[in-house]
Formats: sequence, C-alpha cells, structure tokens
Amino acid sequence: MSVREKALMVKDAQILLGAAKGSAKNDALVGMKQALRKGAKTIFEANRADLDAATQDNLSAPLLKRLKFDETKLDQVIAGIDALIGLPDPAGKILEARKLDEGLNLYRVSCPIGVIGMIFESRPDALVQIASLALKSGNGLLLKGGSEALRTNRALASLIAEGSVASGAPKGWMALLESREEVGELLELDDLVDLLIPRGSNDFVRHIMKNSSIPVLGHADGICHLYLAEDADEVMSVSIAVDSKTQYMAVCNALETLLVDEAAASRLLPPLQKAFQAAGVELRGCDTTRSVIDVAAATEEDWRTEYLGPILSIRVVKDIHEAVAHINRYGSGHTDAIVTNDPAKASFFMARVDSADLFWNCSTRFSDGYRYGLGAEVGISTNKIHARGPVGLEGLMIYKWRMIGSGQIVDDYASGRRSFLHQDISADPSDALL
Amino acid sequence: MSVREKALMVKDAQILLGAAKGSAKNDALVGMKQALRKGAKTIFEANRADLDAATQDNLSAPLLKRLKFDETKLDQVIAGIDALIGLPDPAGKILEARKLDEGLNLYRVSCPIGVIGMIFESRPDALVQIASLALKSGNGLLLKGGSEALRTNRALASLIAEGSVASGAPKGWMALLESREEVGELLELDDLVDLLIPRGSNDFVRHIMKNSSIPVLGHADGICHLYLAEDADEVMSVSIAVDSKTQYMAVCNALETLLVDEAAASRLLPPLQKAFQAAGVELRGCDTTRSVIDVAAATEEDWRTEYLGPILSIRVVKDIHEAVAHINRYGSGHTDAIVTNDPAKASFFMARVDSADLFWNCSTRFSDGYRYGLGAEVGISTNKIHARGPVGLEGLMIYKWRMIGSGQIVDDYASGRRSFLHQDISADPSDALL
Repeated sequence: MSVREKALMVKDAQILLGAAKGSAKNDALVGMKQALRKGAKTIFEANRADLDAATQDNLSAPLLKRLKFDETKLDQVIAGIDALIGLPDPAGKILEARKLDEGLNLYRVSCPIGVIGMIFESRPDALVQIASLALKSGNGLLLKGGSEALRTNRALASLIAEGSVASGAPKGWMALLESREEVGELLELDDLVDLLIPRGSNDFVRHIMKNSSIPVLGHADGICHLYLAEDADEVMSVSIAVDSKTQYMAVCNALETLLVDEAAASRLLPPLQKAFQAAGVELRGCDTTRSVIDVAAATEEDWRTEYLGPILSIRVVKDIHEAVAHINRYGSGHTDAIVTNDPAKASFFMARVDSADLFWNCSTRFSDGYRYGLGAEVGISTNKIHARGPVGLEGLMIYKWRMIGSGQIVDDYASGRRSFLHQDISADPSDALL
Repeated sequence: MSVREKALMVKDAQILLGAAKGSAKNDALVGMKQALRKGAKTIFEANRADLDAATQDNLSAPLLKRLKFDETKLDQVIAGIDALIGLPDPAGKILEARKLDEGLNLYRVSCPIGVIGMIFESRPDALVQIASLALKSGNGLLLKGGSEALRTNRALASLIAEGSVASGAPKGWMALLESREEVGELLELDDLVDLLIPRGSNDFVRHIMKNSSIPVLGHADGICHLYLAEDADEVMSVSIAVDSKTQYMAVCNALETLLVDEAAASRLLPPLQKAFQAAGVELRGCDTTRSVIDVAAATEEDWRTEYLGPILSIRVVKDIHEAVAHINRYGSGHTDAIVTNDPAKASFFMARVDSADLFWNCSTRFSDGYRYGLGAEVGISTNKIHARGPVGLEGLMIYKWRMIGSGQIVDDYASGRRSFLHQDISADPSDALL
C-alpha cells in the first residue's frame, strides 16, 4: 500500500470515527488498553530485539533508555489511556448558538480535525500516547516512529489497531509508516493530511516544517529567558533561575538566557554565580556581566543558542524595554519569565513579550500540559495560529458550523422581505442534532 | 525600504499595538475614519485616475465597477468602521483560568496573532475593511492591492496610516506593498509574517497557498452541494436549489452540484428542470439524471468544477451514503446542504460530511459572516485548523498563557514536596494583570 492509499484508507475511516459518540470512542480505548496488556509479552520481546540491535549499533545510553519499553512503561501508558477515558468527549461541544430567524438556528460545534500525521523519534511510548489522543478526539492517524524502535512500534501499532477495532473503532483509522521514504511521501499529502505533529530534536522538527505545506503543530526551539528586574528579590531570583535552568536541562522549557537589569547586576550576579557554580553550570556573560563576575565571554551566537545542557548565557540590560526587545529578537516565542515585586512591570512584560507563555515570579519549567492541568498533552506549540503553548486535546479539534432551517432562502433576506434576528441562544445537543 | 525592513517595522509597532487597550484602538479607528472623510477628495481623484487608466486598458465592466471608489463606497467603509468601533475588544479576554496551587494562577488570554499579510485583487474598499479589522484586533499589517487600483490604494493607505497614528496608533503598524516582486518577498518572510489572507480568484488564492510556508486563511474553491433526500419536499427542494444556485452565482457559497436521491429522482427532477430553465441555468446530468430529464451529459470533470456561473451539474445517488461519499470526494469542504424531513438523515449528513458549513433545509448562500451574525467578516476559511467557515474578528486572534506566581519552582512539585490543585477559577482582568 502506498502512503497515499494508506492516507485514503485512514481518511475514510476517520469520517466514521469523527461521527462516533464519546462512549463508543471510550469503548475503543478500553479495547486498546486490554490488547496492550494481553500482548505485553509480544511487545517486550520486540523491544528486546530493538534494544539488542541498538546496543550492537552503539546507540548512546540516554537513547537506549528512551528506547526501552518495559513493564513500567506499559503501566504508564495504560494509566495515560485510563486518564483519557475519564476526560469528557472533546467533540460535539456547542461552542456558539445563535437564532438567525424564527426556525433558522446556527450552531458552532467542535469536531476532530481529520487526519493527523505523527512523526516521532525513538520513544515508543509516544506511539501509544498519540494513538490514544487521536482515538479520544476522533482523528485518523498516520504514524511514523524512529527506525531503531521499528519492531516495538510494529507490535504496539498492531495491538492498538486490533484492540480498538475489535471494540468498535472503524477499521483503518490508523496506519503505521515504516520507512524514511514513506515520510517523504507523507509530507506531500497536503490534500489528505490535515496536521503534522513532529516530536524529536530541533533539527528534525525544523526539517518537517520546511519540507511540507501541511500545517505543523509543535516547536523547533525553546530559547527561554528569565528577566530579573531592578527590584527582584535575591532569594527568589536565585531559586527561580536555578530551577529554570537545572531542574531538567534537556527540555524545551529550560532556561537558556538570563537577563539582569543593570541596576540589579552588582547585587544579583555574585549570588547567581555561586549557585550556578554549585549546580555545575557554565556561565557565559556579556561585557557588563564580566565586569561584575568572572565568567567566559558570550558571543552574539550565544543569544541564539538553545544549549539543552549545563551552559547559561547572561546579559545585563539597561531596563525592561531592552529586556523585552532582546527576548522578541532572540527568543523562540516559547516561555519567558520575569522576577519583580512590581505588578506594573510584570504586566508590561507579559503584554509585550511575543511568546506563548509569560510567567511572573515562577520557574519557566512550569510550561507543560500536565502542570497546566490540561488533562493530556498533545505537544507544545510556538505557532501563532490554532494552538499556542502547551496543547491539550483541544489542539486536535476544530469545529463545523451546523445550520438548521425550515426552508429559508437568502433571497428573502437580500430583498428585505425578511430580516435577521441574530440572538445568541442556549442550546442542548439535540437542538443541533448531536 | 525592502519588504523585510517593512515587516520588521510593522512587527516592532505591532508589539505596542498588541498591548494597547480597547479604548486606544477605538480612538485610532475614529482617527482613521475622520482622515478618510477629510481626505475624500484626494481618494476620489486618485480613483478617477485609476479608472481612467483602467478604461484605457480596456478593463471589463464588472472589474471597473469593483475598482470604483466613490461617495457611496466611502459611506459604506465608514459605516463598517463604526460597526467595528461598537464591537467589544477581542483582545484581553480571559478564556481559561486555573489555580495550580496557592499563589500560582494560570490564565489563557486572547491576543492578536501578530503580523498579517493581506493580498487582494482589485476592490480598494477591501483595503479599508482589512485595515480596520487589523487595527481593532491589534494586528500589524502588510497590504498589497491590485495594481490597477494602485493610486486609490496609496491614497487610502496613507490617510489610514496618518489618521490612526495621529490618534495614537503606533507609527509603522501598517505598510503598503506596491509591486508584484514585493509580494514574492512577502511570501518568503515566514519568520516575520504570521498569517496571510488572500482575497481574489481561485487561481490567485491557490498560488499564494502553494508558494508560501506562512499559514493562509481563506479558501480557493467553493464547490458546494445540495442533497435532496428520498423524502425531500418538492416545493422546498426547488426553492432552496434555485436560491443556492442563482441568488448570486459568482460567489463561493453558490451551489455547483445537486445530488438527488434515486428514490426521488423521477418526482423531483422534472420540476427542478423547469425552474432552472426559467432561471436560465444550464443543467448537466449523470446518465440516470438524463434518463429522467433531457439535459446535457456531465463528465467526471463537472463534479470537480466550480462554475461560478449559470451551469449546474446533477447526479442521482443511490442513497445518503453515496451522497456523503460524493461530497467528501469532490467537494471543497466549504458548504453543503441537505433537504429532508427526517432529522436522523440530517444528523447523519452533518456528522459525516467533512465541510466547514453543513445546512439542513436552507440555502447554501447563508454561509457568510454577516448572515451568521459575526459582526465583521475576515473571510471564509476551508482550513481544518484555527478557523473554519465564515471567520469574524476571532480569526485574527490567538492567545497567550500568563502565569502569576509567588516564587514557585518546579522541583518542589517534581519531588513531591508540593502538589498541584488544578482548580478552575473565575477571574477578573486585573487578576491576570490585564
């Protein structure tokens, strides 16, 4: 089957899945879960074969760890499916209801986007997670995982498809792609695939974004900033800076550049240096920073760099305007924070920094779907349309307009024989034939 | 100034415009309006020069009519600005509010998308309309109009910029592009321009969509369908079919293909033929259609054609399944309607047809922002993400997440020292520092 044929199959099945009731989708999730549990041995064996091959190929220890799918991982993904089952159906919600005229009502109703292309590196548990999110939301799915996890992905995908279809999901609602060539074909299918979700390294995501006209949900870079204002409390500044940088360094919401107000530099930089030395973080500073503390010199390139590791660049800025301008120039529109006691400064910062997540007096590391309480996380988006920041199930939804009439024609309104009422109304699902 | 330099200027100004209060944006709209009124003579003179040149270039009568900008058009665009001033500020709305922990609150707040690139053919009144929509929503704007309206567009753009800036809008928030080469540069600026809105012919919109990786809001085709079910009332069927096709034929929500249930074909086709003959519409039918009424033969190409004129293709389908499959295969995801007395059939149709607008027992021509009561129309979108169907000011908005803390760090939650509350709360704008 070509990728186009697979996509056509998924699209046909998605039309049915998109019309399914919430309870039917939950039944299919239960079927998916039970199939995974029953097929545990098959999964673990496939994963062992992947791990053996990866070890022979000298895959690095962190990548091997990500590749591993064991009893613990299985428990985690099944807990994730259970959590999804507990969430309300994101489809079929009436978002707007308006009486246009007597017997002519308009409803804006949430529905799945359609066919999602998910391309991810390594971690096979991501496959289960995104498949369950797609099923819950009623979206069809084309999946491509990392080649080093091919056996595990095959086992997982086949159990998921069988288990969900046996419990009522329409056959063909998801398909696995296996080769790099197939990904190339997928990126061309802008007439069949409605959204791409890539998960992996920055270069990987950037490659997808550059090579497809299908909309992409995600982020390439996470160059996050913390600005310490003139009045920033020393203890809070050090605590938030260290947590933002070091709580987990390899992630998109970790701090990469610290901006310190000129008027606070001599007060805050020494204790910051001490704390980051203790945490094993290398500091690189601008000239003014280096006139206060003894650190390596930062270059222009540093302001544009997502280190994802134990390096932090520091720049002294003359005021909040320069801080905002620096972030809007060098940032990636992900997460940026300010420490100050002054609400007016915080308000100024949050209104003018053009990023998805703006924080006052807390760590950049809070930028995350689970911490936000979204119930489930589809990804983190630095897009300026559709969905921004941590994205929950809502990011996989769009809406349809449903109009329910009784024979109305536009000519009656254009000619002035009738006129519109345009009254917002409250509506039950049955009013919109849901 | 290069297009990149113009875009950088607009982006800088948009940061300020995006932070402006609703009242400040309304003041700028008033300034815009007054400048247009004051500069009426300049506009009309420029328009006369454009019209003279266009007449010499033998522009067609309908295009000349669209190009004309006179007292009536000025009154219309000023009425449009007044209506926008009356609408609530779409920015700064709290869409979600959640207490994550004591002293740690999260707000999802609406804000403008950023920099919009608007490219349109001919009609200079579209320039005023989109400029006022952008200003109301807080978006920066790069505008390119049709070359035959260059003098009019220049006069309008300069009055709009001067009038709005004199009344407080940040200098540089909008810029006019004048050449085709500049459009080519604009399409490349995916790092600075957040959304493109093209308005014009199908080919024109398709060209923009194919040649830029910037998201596009709009639609290329409008291949709209009407399905007459087995039980469809004859009078209603004829009335809705004729209105959908003929009330205004050159527009995207006009009917292009009529689907008639097999069981109703012999009952409905003859009166339909009679009505369409009277309306001067040429009919092209499938073989079964032609066994009932004497019409020209439709080819495969007809099902894919947006006539935008007095031609209608007719296909007899064996049931609602075939009707839905036909629409999902040949349609453009714009507007599709069903006539039936059976709510179950209507529900089936609206759940399974993958289009922006699904109508039961009313004309496809209702698919329009003003008829929907959206207050203002940005355009009609067949996208599957962000905004679908008729799009109001909301389509120019996205959101930011604002988190307001009191020193919280993630390590406290990761280590289990603290745990999240995740309580939805009600919030005043001041809680989110708005």
